[in-house]
Amino acid sequence: MPEPSSKQDLLVGVDLGGTKILAGLFTPQLKLLGTSKLSTKANRGFDAVIERIARTIRDAVDEADMSMKQIRGIGIGAPATIDPERGEVIFAPNLGWKDAPLKNELEKALDVPAVVENDCNICTLGVYEVELQAKPKHMVGIFLGTGVGGGIVLDGKPFSGFNRTAGEIGHTVILVGGPKCGCGNRGCFEALASRTSIFRRLEEELKQGGKSVLTDMLSPGQSFKELKSGDLRKAIRKGDKLVQKVIEDAAEYTGIAVANVLNFLGPQVVVLGGGVIDALSDEMMSIIVETARDYCMPGVDKNVEIIPTKLGDLAGIHGGAVLARQKSR
Amino acid sequence: MPEPSSKQDLLVGVDLGGTKILAGLFTPQLKLLGTSKLSTKANRGFDAVIERIARTIRDAVDEADMSMKQIRGIGIGAPATIDPERGEVIFAPNLGWKDAPLKNELEKALDVPAVVENDCNICTLGVYEVELQAKPKHMVGIFLGTGVGGGIVLDGKPFSGFNRTAGEIGHTVILVGGPKCGCGNRGCFEALASRTSIFRRLEEELKQGGKSVLTDMLSPGQSFKELKSGDLRKAIRKGDKLVQKVIEDAAEYTGIAVANVLNFLGPQVVVLGGGVIDALSDEMMSIIVETARDYCMPGVDKNVEIIPTKLGDLAGIHGGAVLARQKSR
Repeated sequence: MPEPSSKQDLLVGVDLGGTKILAGLFTPQLKLLGTSKLSTKANRGFDAVIERIARTIRDAVDEADMSMKQIRGIGIGAPATIDPERGEVIFAPNLGWKDAPLKNELEKALDVPAVVENDCNICTLGVYEVELQAKPKHMVGIFLGTGVGGGIVLDGKPFSGFNRTAGEIGHTVILVGGPKCGCGNRGCFEALASRTSIFRRLEEELKQGGKSVLTDMLSPGQSFKELKSGDLRKAIRKGDKLVQKVIEDAAEYTGIAVANVLNFLGPQVVVLGGGVIDALSDEMMSIIVETARDYCMPGVDKNVEIIPTKLGDLAGIHGGAVLARQKSR
Repeated sequence: MPEPSSKQDLLVGVDLGGTKILAGLFTPQLKLLGTSKLSTKANRGFDAVIERIARTIRDAVDEADMSMKQIRGIGIGAPATIDPERGEVIFAPNLGWKDAPLKNELEKALDVPAVVENDCNICTLGVYEVELQAKPKHMVGIFLGTGVGGGIVLDGKPFSGFNRTAGEIGHTVILVGGPKCGCGNRGCFEALASRTSIFRRLEEELKQGGKSVLTDMLSPGQSFKELKSGDLRKAIRKGDKLVQKVIEDAAEYTGIAVANVLNFLGPQVVVLGGGVIDALSDEMMSIIVETARDYCMPGVDKNVEIIPTKLGDLAGIHGGAVLARQKSR
């Protein structure tokens, strides 16, 4: 009897971020066999990053004692607007890419079919197919990290809208005239609940005389912006009232954004994820859920679930594998 | 050769509002043959309103020199959450109805099959099928009147979400902590751009010493709240700076709400309608479009149309006829 792994049936999911590349090797049944991580080094340019993605994939395959010949397909999520037909990155501000042929170059480097999607769409797909086993009819994923993004699944299928741009919940305005957002507008959800916006607000509060244990947690020469979401959790657990207040506010804004999604689109499940939620789920989820239900119209949230993903930062690679499986069938 | 009208193939669309009932008689090709209008008199209770709806329908049929025997089906939109399967109104605050068997009682009264939907869903359907000839892939309708409502068409079909409540764009929050809304929350789009909210803000501005020609336009004993959207247009055309400013602000809020829809869902067409837009299209649409495009992420609004409906207050009866045709095929 041949080893099942001798066939060309394994799948690779890749989460390409602005700072790191994560790759995972999966069975056709989406069991995770091995992972590998490498820094992105976007400053070295497109060709260098392609080489690093290829290396991360080879490492993940090697980690699981498998061979590249067993790979049926690669699914990769990028922090970008994507042309999925051509597998091109249209615009990726955090990578400095414009019109970059990600699919073609990766296929050249590895000789395996690749498929490219937006990172939040791919995380949503991973949560939907693997964690929720494709059970809900309609689902929305919301991911709080460096920025805020989202993905939509309707009638069991990823929904990307007319221009394939749907899911940009981070740039829906919930506080007209509010804080400036990276996109140039004001009062976007992202400007109120992303890690970037949380640290910016903390910095402002400290400048105005606020006190926080975070200042003691900095290593010599480390800037405030290099801290991570996990540091916020540590600060709160040390009794830091300022960090607690800022996180509670971010959770309340997130709850209102969830309610907006429920009132307007009416999904069955809203899943929260991303680095901020992964680190601060205990501190934020109950406020998010309570606020969201509070702002829902009567009947809107009946039997609706608002939950954090259990996949954590593995949502992206799971989604990548799901996509690779769909496209290589 | 028999008259085409001798067959039982005509359709009736009904727009049931809090203050008036509008009925229209249509050919199978959705050509409008005649209309009739009656006040709702919701205060007289459910049975009285059913009788008035039936009378409005009979009047519209009579107006077009047709007979009730030629009617194949009735489609009716109500300002309510609806159970479309059972044809029941779940909750209609402006009518004072809860769990009201609208479909059954109307069928009893007229002996014609009836189908019931939310008023904004039905207006969206009317605009989509009749005005846009079902061409756009995805469309969102936004209606500014006494309140603010919306409807969604995805892949050519009405989308109502998990609990059949989708489209409640009026109660998405765009200004956290903003003006109080009828729903009990603060900062809802409806609390910033409905006719009710526009007149409330005008009243406040006048109390604080603002000047407006509207005060001269009131009949003796008439309260400020009895004025109509058309009176706002008249005031602006008389050079009323206060009304102009308030309407421009409402248009800007509406543009931001449109951008939220575009960024999150990515429809191909957004159609604006309702009494406020019908009366103030010239004053509001350019601001709405400019603001919406300004708040869109790159690529989101490419080849996307943001337009006022030409059907005006006939959108609802057209949608009712579309629905009646769909359900009686």
